[in-house]
Amino acid sequence: MSRELLLIGIGAGDPDWVTLEAVRAIQRLDVLFVVLKEDELDDLVEARREVLGRHRQTLPRIVELNDPPRPWRTAPDYNAAVALWRAQRRELWSAALTAELGDDGVGGFLVWGDPSLFESTLAIVHEVLRDFSEPVELRVVPGVSSVHALTARHRIPLNRQGRAVQILPARLLADGMPDGVDDVVAMLDGKLAFNSIDPAGIDIYWGAYLGTPDELLISGDLAKVRDEIVRVRAEAAARKGWMFDTYLLRRR
Amino acid sequence: MSRELLLIGIGAGDPDWVTLEAVRAIQRLDVLFVVLKEDELDDLVEARREVLGRHRQTLPRIVELNDPPRPWRTAPDYNAAVALWRAQRRELWSAALTAELGDDGVGGFLVWGDPSLFESTLAIVHEVLRDFSEPVELRVVPGVSSVHALTARHRIPLNRQGRAVQILPARLLADGMPDGVDDVVAMLDGKLAFNSIDPAGIDIYWGAYLGTPDELLISGDLAKVRDEIVRVRAEAAARKGWMFDTYLLRRR
Ligand SMILES: C[S@@+](CC[C@H](N)C(=O)[O-])C[C@H]1O[C@@H](n2cnc3c(N)ncnc32)[C@H](O)[C@@H]1O
Ligand SMILES: C[S@@+](CC[C@H](N)C(=O)[O-])C[C@H]1O[C@@H](n2cnc3c(N)ncnc32)[C@H](O)[C@@H]1O
Repeated sequence: MSRELLLIGIGAGDPDWVTLEAVRAIQRLDVLFVVLKEDELDDLVEARREVLGRHRQTLPRIVELNDPPRPWRTAPDYNAAVALWRAQRRELWSAALTAELGDDGVGGFLVWGDPSLFESTLAIVHEVLRDFSEPVELRVVPGVSSVHALTARHRIPLNRQGRAVQILPARLLADGMPDGVDDVVAMLDGKLAFNSIDPAGIDIYWGAYLGTPDELLISGDLAKVRDEIVRVRAEAAARKGWMFDTYLLRRR
Repeated sequence: MSRELLLIGIGAGDPDWVTLEAVRAIQRLDVLFVVLKEDELDDLVEARREVLGRHRQTLPRIVELNDPPRPWRTAPDYNAAVALWRAQRRELWSAALTAELGDDGVGGFLVWGDPSLFESTLAIVHEVLRDFSEPVELRVVPGVSSVHALTARHRIPLNRQGRAVQILPARLLADGMPDGVDDVVAMLDGKLAFNSIDPAGIDIYWGAYLGTPDELLISGDLAKVRDEIVRVRAEAAARKGWMFDTYLLRRR
């Protein structure tokens, strides 16, 4: 008897960024769990469907996990509301695993990019498995993250020789470039953080929808190209209805 | 007429970490350049050979680029000696590209892990192409880096939600954990840097030879497991004749 749960990184854009290990893992799935959050992007659900279709003759069972609605930030006791919401989600995932994995099933998730990078799936799975009554073998299949996609498309090194690089959620740029590093990758930028830092001496390498037919790349002196990025980004977001971008800020 | 040069990330250990894009790129090669540095590890040359053999019926032409011997640190005018050494290397690579790519050849390098991360190949190629008389189209194929390999094997997130993560060469740990980050990945550790920082409140996730049959994983409270890592690491290095390890330091 052995239940398995596979978190499969599928790369951050191009369907050809899937690894052979991911292909084999996809082919072993009895059941695929599909997480549907309120803010889940249709195009990313579609991209996962495409990867699945390419590597399976017959599809695995597909089980949707609909995230319960998140409490409002303005809820009376917000912390308690979040705790309750997390418990509900745990309950839902746990029930699905119990029902779907049986005694020796192989279940899995297709995770965008690499499963370790700014992803909640792994953390939730750990929470769920902590209280799980039966043993489940968890395996994580690494993937090509958007960080490596960005540098590949710009054909640049991520780090400078002998130096550190930092990866952060863009909102941490609110106070400017972090101390002690000259190379910073920002993700999850909803607020154009690159446009509010002091651009003196900084180059930017920006990429959106990396690895897809809609890919956009702009690079150069931040002071000179930031207006162009703001414009191109707004146009693309309006056209497609969503935006996925990341960028490297590099002190010259 | 179009010459192409492909820098192909092959993943940092398991031959199944190769992506489909890398497989297709390998299949397109007319000529493969193999960089042989003084300190090049036989096992890594062998690993690349295996990846090549798996995905080619007939091998491409193989051209070895033997790095000229590096000047001694104690050379009378070290900076000038290094400049000369770099010029010699550029010359060698440039001559090889000219001779081997012809008018429309596809040349390439197999790069360990991801080509952007602590790798010199891309930087040297840029140097060479800068002075190159004919146009060469450079393409970089991203790969699974040892950072993502490490977190996958330990089944942990790389970053904490909303927080930054820093990737650095281990010698930058000489002054302790960097400011402002609680998650740090160290690479290229020749001197057991993890063993000389203050371990209070820090967990370590250590991995060696990730993705290979010799893989080693140790994790836990740094104060408690560091002696074990030092011992296991020394034994493995003695047994195999070389060591490749990386680790995440995480403030609790
Ligand atoms: C929830 S995180 C997931 C990251 C993913 N696990 C990875 O390895 O790249 C989503 C963020 O990743 C970045 N991202 C992911 N895919 C991208 C792509 N194809 N192009 C540009 N940015 C991307 C964006 O910053 C986006 O806001
Ligand atoms: C010259 S760097 C190349 C890194 C590579 N480009 C990557 O993406 O991982 C070599 C360092 O990467 C790390 N490394 C690479 N492969 C590894 C593996 N399979 N296991 C552990 N560490 C590895 C080690 O820290 C090693 O000293």
